[in-house]
Amino acid sequence: MPNCSACFFQTNLKVGLIMRNIKLLLEYDGTNYHGWQRQNNGITIQECIENSLFRITGEKTSVIGCGRTDAKVHALEYVCNFFTNSKIPTERFPYALNSLLPRDIIVLRAFEAEKEFHSRFSAREKIYIYKILNNKFGSVFKINHSLHVSQKLAVEKMQRAAKYFLGEHDFVAFMATGGKVKSTIRTIYYLNIIEKDDNIEIEISANGFLYNMVRIIVGTLIYVGIGKISPEEIIDIIKSKDRKKAGITVMPQGLYLKKVIY
Amino acid sequence: MPNCSACFFQTNLKVGLIMRNIKLLLEYDGTNYHGWQRQNNGITIQECIENSLFRITGEKTSVIGCGRTDAKVHALEYVCNFFTNSKIPTERFPYALNSLLPRDIIVLRAFEAEKEFHSRFSAREKIYIYKILNNKFGSVFKINHSLHVSQKLAVEKMQRAAKYFLGEHDFVAFMATGGKVKSTIRTIYYLNIIEKDDNIEIEISANGFLYNMVRIIVGTLIYVGIGKISPEEIIDIIKSKDRKKAGITVMPQGLYLKKVIY
Repeated sequence: MPNCSACFFQTNLKVGLIMRNIKLLLEYDGTNYHGWQRQNNGITIQECIENSLFRITGEKTSVIGCGRTDAKVHALEYVCNFFTNSKIPTERFPYALNSLLPRDIIVLRAFEAEKEFHSRFSAREKIYIYKILNNKFGSVFKINHSLHVSQKLAVEKMQRAAKYFLGEHDFVAFMATGGKVKSTIRTIYYLNIIEKDDNIEIEISANGFLYNMVRIIVGTLIYVGIGKISPEEIIDIIKSKDRKKAGITVMPQGLYLKKVIY
Repeated sequence: MPNCSACFFQTNLKVGLIMRNIKLLLEYDGTNYHGWQRQNNGITIQECIENSLFRITGEKTSVIGCGRTDAKVHALEYVCNFFTNSKIPTERFPYALNSLLPRDIIVLRAFEAEKEFHSRFSAREKIYIYKILNNKFGSVFKINHSLHVSQKLAVEKMQRAAKYFLGEHDFVAFMATGGKVKSTIRTIYYLNIIEKDDNIEIEISANGFLYNMVRIIVGTLIYVGIGKISPEEIIDIIKSKDRKKAGITVMPQGLYLKKVIY
């Protein structure tokens, strides 16, 4: 068994087989999972998809994900792809997979992609949402699906702070230790904060994110919202390149991968 | 221990104690509960509230609910009341209770009510919501919180059907067996069906509901939505007084008690 679909594809190219590259869009509730990527100490989304594909196609395939999502993080439209020799029509994969997958993972659509398409390396832009519930006691319906903040947040100040994140910066101050990347420079395209009743939604788009970057940015915006730092201090925190100057890493359950653009 | 707060109150009146009658507003996720009312074969909301009150006040109190909700049914604002001799300020009860209650039950507010106030008998109007998700594969975020219907519903027809339910009728055709009531006549004040993207919300207000009445009305409206019956047939179903003519009793997880008006 090859340990990645790309190698599998290369191998099969050599032996002359023509494989399809199938792209899947997934919705999942991350509450019960240890994130996307296969690991030994807990069940993951990747494992569920690969096991179900094996049952359908008989092929042991490594599914390529658009990124690692952390434990308890959700996805509205996660993208992954895999290579197959199966004769199952592409549009039947969602039905076949959904009949096998646990109820907290749904395949929304399947497409046939170009041979070169790679869910992670082909991505040009990623959009995340972070949901905050800002009221006295929280809500029973949002326990695993938003961050409850009981102290009233000054959303207008958070919106002012948000604009300092826009554009290309070295975001190393907003990266958790453990992130291994060549460059810590990223471009944030937009960062919108929308308040509706007690709900605050932070939507952030960038050409890529460092490890825990969204959760640290949200933690820093919350510091602005509770008056611990001023909106203008964001400029200095970015410049400092010092993780200790930024806010806390907020809990994963409020985070949703919304969309990946190719 | 007296077996109901009202008796407890009467007893204490005789011995000259002045008790407060405290009204609580609750939000709960019914997924893990066997409804409101205490029973032997599963955990209930009433039991959780009573046990927490005992820990706070040291009093074994029977809490009076505004109605039995079925297993898995949710509440946005359930009303209950209890009598107490405790010296705890009324406004502290939510904080004290929320620190003890499971996370899927929240006390939103506490008020001191008139001595005569009774959550069930004083109610003049009840409002329920039923949530339907009308798309191909459902949503991982709504598994226990709405009914998934994959067949496209004709909402405009359901809205036409809804108006035949309005006003005072004998709703015995929309009562599950097991309902014990003196009269099966009820008045529906409004029945609104709102469609937003894939979500259909049915909101229904009446002076009272028979056993499973909301769920049978929704089941009948779904029959209209899939073309199994016409909107006008509602008139005949009501007149027939025959449970078999109405639609199915839909699943409890889409049902929310929204508000009780006194």
